[in-house]
Amino acid sequence: MIIGDEILTGKFRDDNGPWLIDRCRALGIDLRRISVIPDEVETIGEEVAVCSRRFDWTFTSGGVGPTHDDVTMEGIARGLGRPVQRLPELEAVLRARLVERITEDALRMADAPAGASLWWDGEIAFPQVVVENIVILPGVPALFRARFLAIAHRFGGTPSLSRRLVTTEAESLIAGRLRLAQARWPQVAIGSYPRYEQRPYTVIVILDSRDEPALLACLDWLRDALSGQLLDEPDGSPGR
Amino acid sequence: MIIGDEILTGKFRDDNGPWLIDRCRALGIDLRRISVIPDEVETIGEEVAVCSRRFDWTFTSGGVGPTHDDVTMEGIARGLGRPVQRLPELEAVLRARLVERITEDALRMADAPAGASLWWDGEIAFPQVVVENIVILPGVPALFRARFLAIAHRFGGTPSLSRRLVTTEAESLIAGRLRLAQARWPQVAIGSYPRYEQRPYTVIVILDSRDEPALLACLDWLRDALSGQLLDEPDGSPGR
Repeated sequence: MIIGDEILTGKFRDDNGPWLIDRCRALGIDLRRISVIPDEVETIGEEVAVCSRRFDWTFTSGGVGPTHDDVTMEGIARGLGRPVQRLPELEAVLRARLVERITEDALRMADAPAGASLWWDGEIAFPQVVVENIVILPGVPALFRARFLAIAHRFGGTPSLSRRLVTTEAESLIAGRLRLAQARWPQVAIGSYPRYEQRPYTVIVILDSRDEPALLACLDWLRDALSGQLLDEPDGSPGR
Repeated sequence: MIIGDEILTGKFRDDNGPWLIDRCRALGIDLRRISVIPDEVETIGEEVAVCSRRFDWTFTSGGVGPTHDDVTMEGIARGLGRPVQRLPELEAVLRARLVERITEDALRMADAPAGASLWWDGEIAFPQVVVENIVILPGVPALFRARFLAIAHRFGGTPSLSRRLVTTEAESLIAGRLRLAQARWPQVAIGSYPRYEQRPYTVIVILDSRDEPALLACLDWLRDALSGQLLDEPDGSPGR
């Protein structure tokens, strides 16, 4: 969940979503959804309620500072049916860091949904706040990245393998062969991506799987089936 | 709705969401949400059901080609409780364009949720398919952009005005003044964005409104209230 009016109104480009996509892929985490939503308690709550039920983990980005437009904690609390409360451990961290510059507004950063846990992983200066399966990350890209990297070891999976073929045949002409391959190797995700912007017109076919023998068998079969108009490609280069 | 496994798995970067953000801002369209979801009929249907109820218009990107991984039409039909049917007018367009290269797979691109309308706006070679308040756009960026620009005249609004201030004061110290300004000018959206990556540490305060007198009054008040540590900025430069 990318939370922030500034993204939806075009004031800042979201860097955290694309960065997280690449980290998830490298870590073998199946990313199921990205939602970009405004700084509204009700909207955040609705999205948290859906995501917390549907997915193993949800990461939020943004809306956790001391100003009036930072309403992520309240929104998450609403979505989980919990009150917001001040966490003494977070308050102590803030008081130790800010000393005489502490204000009531700064202390808002010690508020979290009731029952939240704190993870003190790695070198991070401020602990990671987690409530149920919602991991609440800051929106500032440098902080978002440092925090995520500190906790990433908790979410490891098996990365997918990827292979691709590039053909100059029209998508509608190769669709039947792709469908046959997909039916035969259901454990391989086969995607077909036409590129109209460049000449010659090409279709990039990308195979993704955690089952390497199936991936290679499917790749061989498709390389034969599409052999007429395949372009030479460095074998096995990942997509992008 | 950005529909595509290839985005969530990091094979291709989504360009359509960021591009549409900028167009929406320029056109005065309030963008309320971006969802990036996989090529799954059930998931697409659930998201369409939510968006079609909640928003005036929903634009979808991707999943409308002839291959097995193109399931957007079926997903939208599911979400709206309609069957998929072949549209004779679209079939005629495809047959005229492909002539003897027509295949049953190519004709899948003539399928749409029952009751869909076709918009023949501008110079586009293929009409825009719309069902209820769902506008179904192709995922290939060049086509997505050409199609959206052809139909954009239907969605005009009043663009927001934006002004910004940059201060070296800490966010938690200015939070009180921002809150006062927000309470006094509720028709101005005030956002506060700390930039930790650069030295000096700065906070960018962005004011957004369609009410120019309120925007300028709020800007003047905040410029006074924050005068201690404001950085010189070209007055009224938009954000980003």
